[in-house]
Amino acid sequence: MKIAMLGFGSVGKGVYQACLDHQMFYASQYGVELEVEKVLVRRPHPMLGERGVTTFEAIVDDPEIECVIEVMGGIQPAYSYISRALKAGKHVVSANKDLVAEKGPELFEIARNHRVKFCFEASVGGGIPVLYPLKSSLQANRIESLSGILNGTSNYILSRMQDDRLAFDEALAQAQDLGYAERDPSADISGLDAARKLVILASLAWNKQFSLHHVRCQGIETVRLDDLAEAKQQGETIKLVAEAMQASDGYRLSVGPKRISSDHPLFMVSGVNNAVVVKGDLTGDVMFFGAGAGGQPTASSVLSDVLNLALNQAVQLTFSNEVPSVIGL
Amino acid sequence: MKIAMLGFGSVGKGVYQACLDHQMFYASQYGVELEVEKVLVRRPHPMLGERGVTTFEAIVDDPEIECVIEVMGGIQPAYSYISRALKAGKHVVSANKDLVAEKGPELFEIARNHRVKFCFEASVGGGIPVLYPLKSSLQANRIESLSGILNGTSNYILSRMQDDRLAFDEALAQAQDLGYAERDPSADISGLDAARKLVILASLAWNKQFSLHHVRCQGIETVRLDDLAEAKQQGETIKLVAEAMQASDGYRLSVGPKRISSDHPLFMVSGVNNAVVVKGDLTGDVMFFGAGAGGQPTASSVLSDVLNLALNQAVQLTFSNEVPSVIGL
Repeated sequence: MKIAMLGFGSVGKGVYQACLDHQMFYASQYGVELEVEKVLVRRPHPMLGERGVTTFEAIVDDPEIECVIEVMGGIQPAYSYISRALKAGKHVVSANKDLVAEKGPELFEIARNHRVKFCFEASVGGGIPVLYPLKSSLQANRIESLSGILNGTSNYILSRMQDDRLAFDEALAQAQDLGYAERDPSADISGLDAARKLVILASLAWNKQFSLHHVRCQGIETVRLDDLAEAKQQGETIKLVAEAMQASDGYRLSVGPKRISSDHPLFMVSGVNNAVVVKGDLTGDVMFFGAGAGGQPTASSVLSDVLNLALNQAVQLTFSNEVPSVIGL
Repeated sequence: MKIAMLGFGSVGKGVYQACLDHQMFYASQYGVELEVEKVLVRRPHPMLGERGVTTFEAIVDDPEIECVIEVMGGIQPAYSYISRALKAGKHVVSANKDLVAEKGPELFEIARNHRVKFCFEASVGGGIPVLYPLKSSLQANRIESLSGILNGTSNYILSRMQDDRLAFDEALAQAQDLGYAERDPSADISGLDAARKLVILASLAWNKQFSLHHVRCQGIETVRLDDLAEAKQQGETIKLVAEAMQASDGYRLSVGPKRISSDHPLFMVSGVNNAVVVKGDLTGDVMFFGAGAGGQPTASSVLSDVLNLALNQAVQLTFSNEVPSVIGL
């Protein structure tokens, strides 16, 4: 299968390299030959040579490209590119949480109308399989609640503050040095990034279109070293927890710092790890845990989606555009 | 979709009840009408009335039955029934770990030849999605190792011994009283049950047919209260850990009691919970955690398989009958 990529940042490079490194493995294990033919970049890149292209038309007008991987992020121009690619009969695999949260149902419909698929496992939880299992392995359950640690940067900062008594600014600076935090970390710190991922999880779990203004959102700026020390003394910890639950009168979604006791499954999720706990009426609590970000883990989810498409076994995850009744705001 | 069940023990009753309780939910959410038409039982059962049948022929010869759920366990007569159902053009969903471990490749071939599917998510980890995610969401990875707590009974016993200083026999008796342990708990205690599940995980991960005699297996009978107390004093614990890894000279599979430090993801898996840690070359450690047994959690996996079949989106998980090179025995 000939594929093209949109974007060549840290995730893009991770996907590109992983695809090269695993080319023979995928051919021998699955009989799938994956070739990254073109990569859309702003300007020519030495790693890419001839493969680097600077116009989207070079990709969308190429009939040999069957699948487009979008790793540029943001709503525009990603949305126009993805919808044009789908309309041109190309599958799209995306890691773009903003876009899925905001434009999911529109993209699902375009994909359906053009008999292709729009896959987005990588948009939540990086390398942790969670969206697909929620819809393909837990769908026999009524989902009662979701909770998780969905932002690695803020979790790393809180872990360092608690374990090493680093001040917030110091912990943040270290996260930036290690490449975990963006240069502008405000979406991580404020809870916005976690809220976006919660919106996608809730939308899939309950087949409605939740949005950011449905989430009561608080960041970690207000967490003090003393709060963490006090929690630690009592054998507890404080984490930025994203939660969604279905009550009789509506759904309740929140992101905020929360005390976690040592017998809770999220207690051990430290550093840049992420975890999602799904409570089904049949299974009870099921937890998915692992690396929530980074080029290689994200590449795992992106390329697994691509392999499912190549093997003609991808399932279109969807949620409706029905607006849910939300309480507790 | 009209379905039939083979077996009506605790798992069978769980599946039957869950199917009744969720009938309207599946119809409204997925447009799937699931009807349990017949249940194979040894003798008529008051809960079943007319639906209880005492011959397999009443099921296999009924052209309206599209899917057979096997929850009887054991190799025979389950193997003959399943292969006959597949040959009659019916999908089969099974929770039978012995059978998948021993006869997997034969059943996959019968299913392929008759254009139906043989699904078995429930055979490992009860209600925890793990087999499907391994092959549908992590398949872009070379799997480096697998480890897990795969037997709830032995984990419960060790947890009670450590937390409450119960003697082995007392903890076992409590597990039996609570319905966690079978009347004959030898397969749980000896590690055999965990070894069977490890064989299925390794076979799927590396596409080879591992078998029980590839597993170096030790049970929990030799774990003494003093060992547990010593571990606890050092902030550690002892668990029955199943492990498989790929080394340069072959695969190494083992089940046995093992010290676990508090920063290991398996540390917090207590009581009857199960967990599987998959180490992929792209993702690093990913953990799946939840209730590893019981009627309702198992029903979650069985009915999710059934829904995938009804929606025509089930993927046939397979492994080859190639014999692996195994070391360390």
